[in-house]
Amino acid sequence: MARVFSVHHNRIGRSPGTVEYLGSRKVDTVTVQARVCGPDLCEDLDIEAVLAGAGPRQGQTLWVDVVGLHDNELVARLGARFRIDGLVLEDVLSTTQRAKVEDREHLLYAVCRSSDFTSTNGRAGTEQVSIILGPDFVISFQEREPDVFAPVRERMQRGKGRLRTAGAGYLAYALLDAVVDGHLLALSHFGERVEALEEEMLDDTSERHLAEIHSLKREMILLRRAIRPMRDMTANFARLVAEDFGDEVRVYLGDLHDHTIQTSDAIDSYGELLQGMHDYHQSTTGQRLNEVIKVLTIISTLFVPLTFLAGIYGMNFHHMPELAWRWSYPLFWTVTVGVSVGMLVFFRRRNWI
Amino acid sequence: MARVFSVHHNRIGRSPGTVEYLGSRKVDTVTVQARVCGPDLCEDLDIEAVLAGAGPRQGQTLWVDVVGLHDNELVARLGARFRIDGLVLEDVLSTTQRAKVEDREHLLYAVCRSSDFTSTNGRAGTEQVSIILGPDFVISFQEREPDVFAPVRERMQRGKGRLRTAGAGYLAYALLDAVVDGHLLALSHFGERVEALEEEMLDDTSERHLAEIHSLKREMILLRRAIRPMRDMTANFARLVAEDFGDEVRVYLGDLHDHTIQTSDAIDSYGELLQGMHDYHQSTTGQRLNEVIKVLTIISTLFVPLTFLAGIYGMNFHHMPELAWRWSYPLFWTVTVGVSVGMLVFFRRRNWI
Amino acid sequence: MARVFSVHHNRIGRSPGTVEYLGSRKVDTVTVQARVCGPDLCEDLDIEAVLAGAGPRQGQTLWVDVVGLHDNELVARLGARFRIDGLVLEDVLSTTQRAKVEDREHLLYAVCRSSDFTSTNGRAGTEQVSIILGPDFVISFQEREPDVFAPVRERMQRGKGRLRTAGAGYLAYALLDAVVDGHLLALSHFGERVEALEEEMLDDTSERHLAEIHSLKREMILLRRAIRPMRDMTANFARLVAEDFGDEVRVYLGDLHDHTIQTSDAIDSYGELLQGMHDYHQSTTGQRLNEVIKVLTIISTLFVPLTFLAGIYGMNFHHMPELAWRWSYPLFWTVTVGVSVGMLVFFRRRNWI
Amino acid sequence: MARVFSVHHNRIGRSPGTVEYLGSRKVDTVTVQARVCGPDLCEDLDIEAVLAGAGPRQGQTLWVDVVGLHDNELVARLGARFRIDGLVLEDVLSTTQRAKVEDREHLLYAVCRSSDFTSTNGRAGTEQVSIILGPDFVISFQEREPDVFAPVRERMQRGKGRLRTAGAGYLAYALLDAVVDGHLLALSHFGERVEALEEEMLDDTSERHLAEIHSLKREMILLRRAIRPMRDMTANFARLVAEDFGDEVRVYLGDLHDHTIQTSDAIDSYGELLQGMHDYHQSTTGQRLNEVIKVLTIISTLFVPLTFLAGIYGMNFHHMPELAWRWSYPLFWTVTVGVSVGMLVFFRRRNWI
Amino acid sequence: MARVFSVHHNRIGRSPGTVEYLGSRKVDTVTVQARVCGPDLCEDLDIEAVLAGAGPRQGQTLWVDVVGLHDNELVARLGARFRIDGLVLEDVLSTTQRAKVEDREHLLYAVCRSSDFTSTNGRAGTEQVSIILGPDFVISFQEREPDVFAPVRERMQRGKGRLRTAGAGYLAYALLDAVVDGHLLALSHFGERVEALEEEMLDDTSERHLAEIHSLKREMILLRRAIRPMRDMTANFARLVAEDFGDEVRVYLGDLHDHTIQTSDAIDSYGELLQGMHDYHQSTTGQRLNEVIKVLTIISTLFVPLTFLAGIYGMNFHHMPELAWRWSYPLFWTVTVGVSVGMLVFFRRRNWI
Repeated sequence: MARVFSVHHNRIGRSPGTVEYLGSRKVDTVTVQARVCGPDLCEDLDIEAVLAGAGPRQGQTLWVDVVGLHDNELVARLGARFRIDGLVLEDVLSTTQRAKVEDREHLLYAVCRSSDFTSTNGRAGTEQVSIILGPDFVISFQEREPDVFAPVRERMQRGKGRLRTAGAGYLAYALLDAVVDGHLLALSHFGERVEALEEEMLDDTSERHLAEIHSLKREMILLRRAIRPMRDMTANFARLVAEDFGDEVRVYLGDLHDHTIQTSDAIDSYGELLQGMHDYHQSTTGQRLNEVIKVLTIISTLFVPLTFLAGIYGMNFHHMPELAWRWSYPLFWTVTVGVSVGMLVFFRRRNWI
Repeated sequence: MARVFSVHHNRIGRSPGTVEYLGSRKVDTVTVQARVCGPDLCEDLDIEAVLAGAGPRQGQTLWVDVVGLHDNELVARLGARFRIDGLVLEDVLSTTQRAKVEDREHLLYAVCRSSDFTSTNGRAGTEQVSIILGPDFVISFQEREPDVFAPVRERMQRGKGRLRTAGAGYLAYALLDAVVDGHLLALSHFGERVEALEEEMLDDTSERHLAEIHSLKREMILLRRAIRPMRDMTANFARLVAEDFGDEVRVYLGDLHDHTIQTSDAIDSYGELLQGMHDYHQSTTGQRLNEVIKVLTIISTLFVPLTFLAGIYGMNFHHMPELAWRWSYPLFWTVTVGVSVGMLVFFRRRNWI
Repeated sequence: MARVFSVHHNRIGRSPGTVEYLGSRKVDTVTVQARVCGPDLCEDLDIEAVLAGAGPRQGQTLWVDVVGLHDNELVARLGARFRIDGLVLEDVLSTTQRAKVEDREHLLYAVCRSSDFTSTNGRAGTEQVSIILGPDFVISFQEREPDVFAPVRERMQRGKGRLRTAGAGYLAYALLDAVVDGHLLALSHFGERVEALEEEMLDDTSERHLAEIHSLKREMILLRRAIRPMRDMTANFARLVAEDFGDEVRVYLGDLHDHTIQTSDAIDSYGELLQGMHDYHQSTTGQRLNEVIKVLTIISTLFVPLTFLAGIYGMNFHHMPELAWRWSYPLFWTVTVGVSVGMLVFFRRRNWI
Repeated sequence: MARVFSVHHNRIGRSPGTVEYLGSRKVDTVTVQARVCGPDLCEDLDIEAVLAGAGPRQGQTLWVDVVGLHDNELVARLGARFRIDGLVLEDVLSTTQRAKVEDREHLLYAVCRSSDFTSTNGRAGTEQVSIILGPDFVISFQEREPDVFAPVRERMQRGKGRLRTAGAGYLAYALLDAVVDGHLLALSHFGERVEALEEEMLDDTSERHLAEIHSLKREMILLRRAIRPMRDMTANFARLVAEDFGDEVRVYLGDLHDHTIQTSDAIDSYGELLQGMHDYHQSTTGQRLNEVIKVLTIISTLFVPLTFLAGIYGMNFHHMPELAWRWSYPLFWTVTVGVSVGMLVFFRRRNWI
Repeated sequence: MARVFSVHHNRIGRSPGTVEYLGSRKVDTVTVQARVCGPDLCEDLDIEAVLAGAGPRQGQTLWVDVVGLHDNELVARLGARFRIDGLVLEDVLSTTQRAKVEDREHLLYAVCRSSDFTSTNGRAGTEQVSIILGPDFVISFQEREPDVFAPVRERMQRGKGRLRTAGAGYLAYALLDAVVDGHLLALSHFGERVEALEEEMLDDTSERHLAEIHSLKREMILLRRAIRPMRDMTANFARLVAEDFGDEVRVYLGDLHDHTIQTSDAIDSYGELLQGMHDYHQSTTGQRLNEVIKVLTIISTLFVPLTFLAGIYGMNFHHMPELAWRWSYPLFWTVTVGVSVGMLVFFRRRNWI
């Protein structure tokens, strides 16, 4: 199961701003893609060239996309090249961040969690995504494959839309939009599983459902921790970006913010639905218990007294006058039937049968 | 069952502002009605003429009402004719919007969910309604029949009230008012079902009620997601409209806002009532279990020891002096009655009978 | 049972501002009392005279009190006489309003719900009360008898206090104060019932209590919907009135506002108390079940094995050597007593007896 | 049990500002202590002298402390002497106030509830305390003994600290501080009882604990109603006092405000802890039920089939070939042991034993 | 168990600002370390020298670290030397403070709770930590060992990072950061225990788990009371410090504030997870009860009627014609098997087996 929260114990006590990754390697090799795009061209750059100073020209945007976080040296060199301060780099490498946006002198740092429902056996997991936005460049960091930015890369390649022309602010928007699209998708898959379970339960409930409800609740908590802080984050991001990149990007970021409100809203509804399903399950169990117990009680109440009666006339006392009577046996049956009918009337009156 | 949340998977990864409907066709043909109204006249226009440039004259208002969303071309042409930007059109066609209002340069875009309790077997469903308000025109989009705007159309036809004279702002108000009236109606029907179930349950509870409570809770969640965001939306709408259309519309929109507070309030009360009904059901089940178990215990506790006693004197040991005693049998009965009375006293003291 | 929420279906689709009452007649005749009071006099006026233009002179205040809402014509004439606009009149007649105050050009409209615990068999019900405050007049509307304003009328008659001299603002305050006093009273009666039930339950719980708790919870929901919106309403009312009627009324309205905070607070406490009572009931039921089941288990576990043993020696096999043994029967009793004692030790160790 | 809320029914309908106490007499005689203190002296004054006009001289502070509220005349005379308006006096005498502070022209009125855990058999009760603060005097009202202000009086007598020199503002602070100290103490006692019960329950749970949890929850509700409003009250009081009595008192009142935040926080934690204890109790009961039922089921399932078998060979049919067989009886025992072992294996596999 | 809340009863009634520690001695001896650090040096000072007036020179920072609070005289002398007012010292010694920051004339006082999961048998406990920040000195107070500031001391010793050069503001930040790092660590340990329990429960639930869940909930309440107020505290601290110590410290404190948001968030998630685990446990218990009862009912319902039948033919009536019939015994078996099969069909239809 994905952990709700964890820190790396050896992190404690280090100086703030130490650029060192302490998590497990989630990919074998760290891959870096640097690409510079403008209205007319879109070409890959060698990362070494970029680190050595190569960059976008007027009207162009540079995008450096890093997948995998365990190459401390690379991160430090990127930091030096783009003047990213140590606290930001520490946050990039410390994968327990809550979605937030920070305004540093000449750049914006946004961090959030993408939801990757394919990772852990179809259950929702979340990975940290960092985006650093400068005047003409965007640097993005992901923990592992699959690349949530693949659709953006593809659209950029095709050259359609505004991706090539609208600058770094729009590119950062497009990357965040890809993350939120991932949330929408994860939420939709999650919802399908919740509602499939719900429908199954309305037919019949079993103990298996309980474990499934609990497990879905847990995923819901994880997803919600990824999704909910996006609301404030996108609102702040829109506010900060608007000043530097103009009104067009503001409109798009407003749209993005609306999507995060939708997802927040939906995850809350699922939380409530899951609680309702738990309540329904529990009550159904109680109701079934009642029915089973009623059957037991009816059977016992019918036969236990009669068995006692039969036991009496099975006794071997020498002096039991009834034994010799001519009509004892028919009388016994009469009493038996009479008691049974009386009991059934009693049960009917109590509304048990 | 209506889904709590869903997105169309092929939507993910498209450029923002793509005008394409991805949902299922909820009506066979898309119908469009264009109507221009002024103090003196109210006549239908041909939609092609409108798209070609025909519009309202001084003092007139144009209303274009689209039912059905799968005609991408029509939507795109409307967008071009009335200069509606791509993000708005994308939202119009993406039917998972939460109620909101957006202020675009020369027009206002309001989206919300109407509640149509007739659609899915008497259970409440919700459909997306979009309203685009320009200086002298209103364009409305609905997902399917039945037309929630029918009462507005009729009042406009009859020529009564302010609908013909008060301009586009008032018309937009009237359309939103029709949506909120739909909520009031749906809520009233919903409430009748909740309260009918409640009254039935106070007579007697059964397992069927549990499924019904769960299903009503679910509907409540759906309804609430349609109703609650209307509060902020109508408040924002009133604020934005007031500047352009003056004080009279502001008063009406304030009234509308009050209605959305009433509906929010009522749906919350129903949520609480349903939770209370669930609690009541569960407790009643537990209480009944207690009663049933008491009967079982009383019967067993009375007869099980006596049956044992009878079993003893049914044994075939050769040496059982009691068997030959003269008063054994009457003594047996005495003991039996004595034990029974003792038990009954015990039960009475425990307050079981 | 009082409905939690309802609208009149034929209301839907009407023009806003239609002055028509759609509810049921809660009184046979609509009664109207018009009274004009000043420092020196306090006399009833004929309502027709008032409608024809008669009104208060300098330093006097006119109070028109309407009980019963089904006389549409009267309401319309009052509207015309005192220049009350249609939306206000519609709200007066539409009895599902949430407490609010509205600032119209030359008058204030306050609406709230009085709680009338005498109406429906001792259970709390709520009725709508509207108060329209002009510069020198107050018009009040109530749905039915009993008149919550009776104490105000009486104090005005006696001529004591400030009612005659302090103007329309003070009169409106006095009317709202009468409504809040009604809430205090209803809450006190409600609380007595809750606490009587609680005390009864601490002695012994029964199924009847469950239905009573549920019913009290429901009343609590209704009362809370009447009481809670009063907080904001009185605060707004105080703010709006202060400008026109000066500081003295502001002090009184502040006092009124404090009372509404007290009532809100108390109804929330009762809600929590009722939930606690429900929890207590449920847990007690579970605890009792445990006890009953223990008795059953002890009896069964003691006697079922022994009955089996007796059954064995009641078998008629020809070859059962024990049957002929001299000490079989005493041995049987020894085993019986031994097993019983063993069982009792086992139960004691499990802390069951 | 202390009532959660009550009003005196004859209060309803009186003019606002009526100075009349309607509650029960909580002390036999109303006691009044008037004391004037300055840097050099601290002497008691005769209350009649004070009412006749005697008061503090320059640099002195007068403190009038009233215990018991049923002397309406005294209260009215104090009101006249210190120009306290009727609404304030009405609140002083109406003992259902929520903690608040009011700013009247030349004085401040603060009301709150002291918690007196000694009053009702060791259970927490709350009494109303009113403090009226003028430029050079403080008037305090309490409902009953024991005097929560005793420590203040003592410190004043000893002449230590700032009580004699720091003016009326500091004295009012000291009185409120004594009330909050009382809350801290009551909370600490309350907490001890909660935690003692918790520890007892972790050993073993019984029905008695349920009633105790419920009763503690109820006390918690009462205490919280006394404690929680203190937060806002002390914040407002600090703000209002600061203007007149300077920075030093502001610092102390800030400290007092921090204490009210601590108490609010702690009472909320206890509420949560009590709910957790209730949940624990309920679940433990369910768990125990399971165990008991398992024992019953194991015993029944072992012996009921065997008893049936024994019953068969106890039948008296003339033609039962098995009865005459040589090895029937040993075979019977073999079957018996075999079935028992099989059952035990079945139970073990279900993890019941 | 750690107490949720306690005050020292003899504290009540003392003058505010009394510098006296009333808690238990948590360490044997109070240890004080005074150290002065600058860019070039870092040396320990004798505490007596410091109290006598020795202090930091230009560009240096003095850190006085006190562990153990029961040396009243030392605290008083520190107060006199650094001009700390009595209310602050009282708060330092009163170990029930909620995290807060106070702005005194020439210094800042921050108090919070460190979480020390090693203290009470692996369970989380919390200790009070006070930090007083002056222009060129920091005084810290801890209740007991282990020293949460050890990592800071070590880094300072090593001379790396900004600790020696960045002034008192940065030192105070570093100390708070150590406290928050302790929270992160405690939370991580706590989370491991919660999730280990969760995994164990998904295999099988037992009564032991209930007590463990309850105990974890309790720890959660304690941890949350330490963690949650840190959010506001760090935000206020950052605001107040920024003015005096410049932008660099502001950035670090912003980072610290983000960490407190992470911890708040995580502790809330654990609270929810624990509640979910409780719900899961309770429902599983109910479900298992159902299964056990079903077995009991099936067995009883199969054999009880048959035992009755066998009992009948064990009776000793002289006139029972069936006893003599030739095929009675085979017929008896036929009936027995028939009834059993019928019952099994009935159970299968009810979905019990």
